[in-house]
Amino acid sequence: MTVKISVLKERDEGGERRVALIPQVVEKLAPLGIAFSMETGAGLASSYPDNAYTGVSVSPDRNALLADADIVLAVQPPSLDTVRAMKPGSVLVSFVYGRNNPDLVKALRDGKITGFAMELVPRISRAQAMDALSSQATLAGYYAVLMGAVHMPKILPMMTTAVGSLRAAQVLVMGLGVAGLQALATAKRLGAVTEGYDVRPETREEAQSLGAKFVDTGVDATGQGGYARELTDDEKHKVRTILSEHIARSDLIVTTAAVPGKRAPRLIDAEQISAMKPGAVIIDLGAEGGGNCEGTVAGQTVRVGPATIVGPVNVASMLAEQASELYAKNIMHLLQQLITKEHGLAPDFTDEVIAGTALTHDGYITNDGVRAAIDPT
Amino acid sequence: MTVKISVLKERDEGGERRVALIPQVVEKLAPLGIAFSMETGAGLASSYPDNAYTGVSVSPDRNALLADADIVLAVQPPSLDTVRAMKPGSVLVSFVYGRNNPDLVKALRDGKITGFAMELVPRISRAQAMDALSSQATLAGYYAVLMGAVHMPKILPMMTTAVGSLRAAQVLVMGLGVAGLQALATAKRLGAVTEGYDVRPETREEAQSLGAKFVDTGVDATGQGGYARELTDDEKHKVRTILSEHIARSDLIVTTAAVPGKRAPRLIDAEQISAMKPGAVIIDLGAEGGGNCEGTVAGQTVRVGPATIVGPVNVASMLAEQASELYAKNIMHLLQQLITKEHGLAPDFTDEVIAGTALTHDGYITNDGVRAAIDPT
Repeated sequence: MTVKISVLKERDEGGERRVALIPQVVEKLAPLGIAFSMETGAGLASSYPDNAYTGVSVSPDRNALLADADIVLAVQPPSLDTVRAMKPGSVLVSFVYGRNNPDLVKALRDGKITGFAMELVPRISRAQAMDALSSQATLAGYYAVLMGAVHMPKILPMMTTAVGSLRAAQVLVMGLGVAGLQALATAKRLGAVTEGYDVRPETREEAQSLGAKFVDTGVDATGQGGYARELTDDEKHKVRTILSEHIARSDLIVTTAAVPGKRAPRLIDAEQISAMKPGAVIIDLGAEGGGNCEGTVAGQTVRVGPATIVGPVNVASMLAEQASELYAKNIMHLLQQLITKEHGLAPDFTDEVIAGTALTHDGYITNDGVRAAIDPT
Repeated sequence: MTVKISVLKERDEGGERRVALIPQVVEKLAPLGIAFSMETGAGLASSYPDNAYTGVSVSPDRNALLADADIVLAVQPPSLDTVRAMKPGSVLVSFVYGRNNPDLVKALRDGKITGFAMELVPRISRAQAMDALSSQATLAGYYAVLMGAVHMPKILPMMTTAVGSLRAAQVLVMGLGVAGLQALATAKRLGAVTEGYDVRPETREEAQSLGAKFVDTGVDATGQGGYARELTDDEKHKVRTILSEHIARSDLIVTTAAVPGKRAPRLIDAEQISAMKPGAVIIDLGAEGGGNCEGTVAGQTVRVGPATIVGPVNVASMLAEQASELYAKNIMHLLQQLITKEHGLAPDFTDEVIAGTALTHDGYITNDGVRAAIDPT
């Protein structure tokens, strides 16, 4: 039962540099009887030239690859044309972000494509190896601190010189999910004095285990599914007062707060920014979702009063080689659930992970939340 | 005996963000009876707003400040117009780079300005606190690694994730002066596997003390004044063969080789670059002197074969706040030699440090090397 898998070259317009397959994964999946094809140059931007992929056929004809594939792998949500070139009953594995891309979801449904959306992988321990949001967020958290460091007018570590010592920088990370914790770890590595803040008090120990002080505001905002709930106005005021002081003394702030399907929560307002130190830098990883800071512009670096606010988009793509490595391995673990040597491609929709990751199947939007949002009938 | 010191705002065209005076130095020099003036906004780009300078008068009238000053402080070599507006017998303290700026040296001579060139501070232990080349190079070495990290498609540290471990990056630093050693230290902090190379074998222990492996080529090129001598062709070939292997396996290379008054030595050629890993990055701190790598373009980031070569200029200025702090303190230590409370401004030209730092005095080019280079008569 040979399963044909085609891997797409990401479209250039989004600046996406990652690829959904790396040579190592080809090797690992070989025993399952898979025939891999990929678009010419698909891995080039992530440092995997075509000739690095042993046993993968390479073709410039995207439509032929799509028409022939049992499974199509991509990073970014594909275009409608891409979906329409796929054969009925075939499988797409990529990020889809269905709520933001209703036309894409409908095209998958109407084309009878089984769409597995990598952002829907359930956050349970058995699915950790498939959790692409986490793997990419880890890299984004690391990179955020380095972006901060190159925008700051001072260094992160304490440094002793012939002419006196330079003080270590103060780094505050707001939002202690996967990205935030990695940001704390990276800032600490570089020698900064670190503080972490999150509305979920159970993150205290994680921050402290990374050598950071935890900013205690006395407000508990533990929510569902590992994300924070929204705060009441009173809670917001209480939090704001305490945070203002920490914001004012920071040299670098990394914000990472996201609520799935909603606008990124506002963590820092214009008044707080105006009270920051001259030269202070904010890296707003919430930029794509509307920004955690007042004044953030997605994709740009702006000067607001004394501070510089960087609003990067698609940060993981900046570390394309290893972001692709982790993403391709996340997909590999999913494929190992979907494919067996005996039966070929045979997804078991009674499996919690497979059912949870599926967005569309056999002419139907299987994810309740996305279906309710874009097709309420 | 009040000494009047004027501090210039650097000209915008060079992208210079540093300033030659910080508030802390004003305070420290107060007992010597100095009246400080500075150009409006001189410290702004390095995060020192005018109102941070207590006891310093601020004026937008550059020519008035120049005409009134006993001592003028700057970072970059001043323009001819600036020198011509200074009064005869007054003192300039700044970088001058006389060999590259012969007209400037002649203007200082003809204007009877005593020019102290910060790049001429003798490299002896008593003058360490005045050594601006070293203080700025330390910061450049740190920053080079961070620039490398944001250009690389992978992370520096080893990282364990739910989907497997990412390998630590291989970092090679070529040229182990102040900048190179700081680059090694910073790459190590970030978790990279580090290697150091220098033609001077005595740098081995310094590299090793920073956790780096020393690349041994069997060639000793110890030269005068702490700099390396030029190698013979045979030596170059021997070194090249061994280095090629280390270059080919590096993810990030920082080159820092400089020979004063000469073109930067070529450390990496086009053939070696073509054998590098896809996505490898070179930060060429020799870019301003013509580059340590074939293909380096000063002030630009270029893609050459598999590699990205970054040729930054004026790197210390990117860390303007602390670069200014160190530079201003370097100058402070020099001023403490030039000025006494009893006699005011009274340089003792029999002092090795003062004589060594002086470039022009009383209508004469006092530095032998510079005089020979630009005024052989």
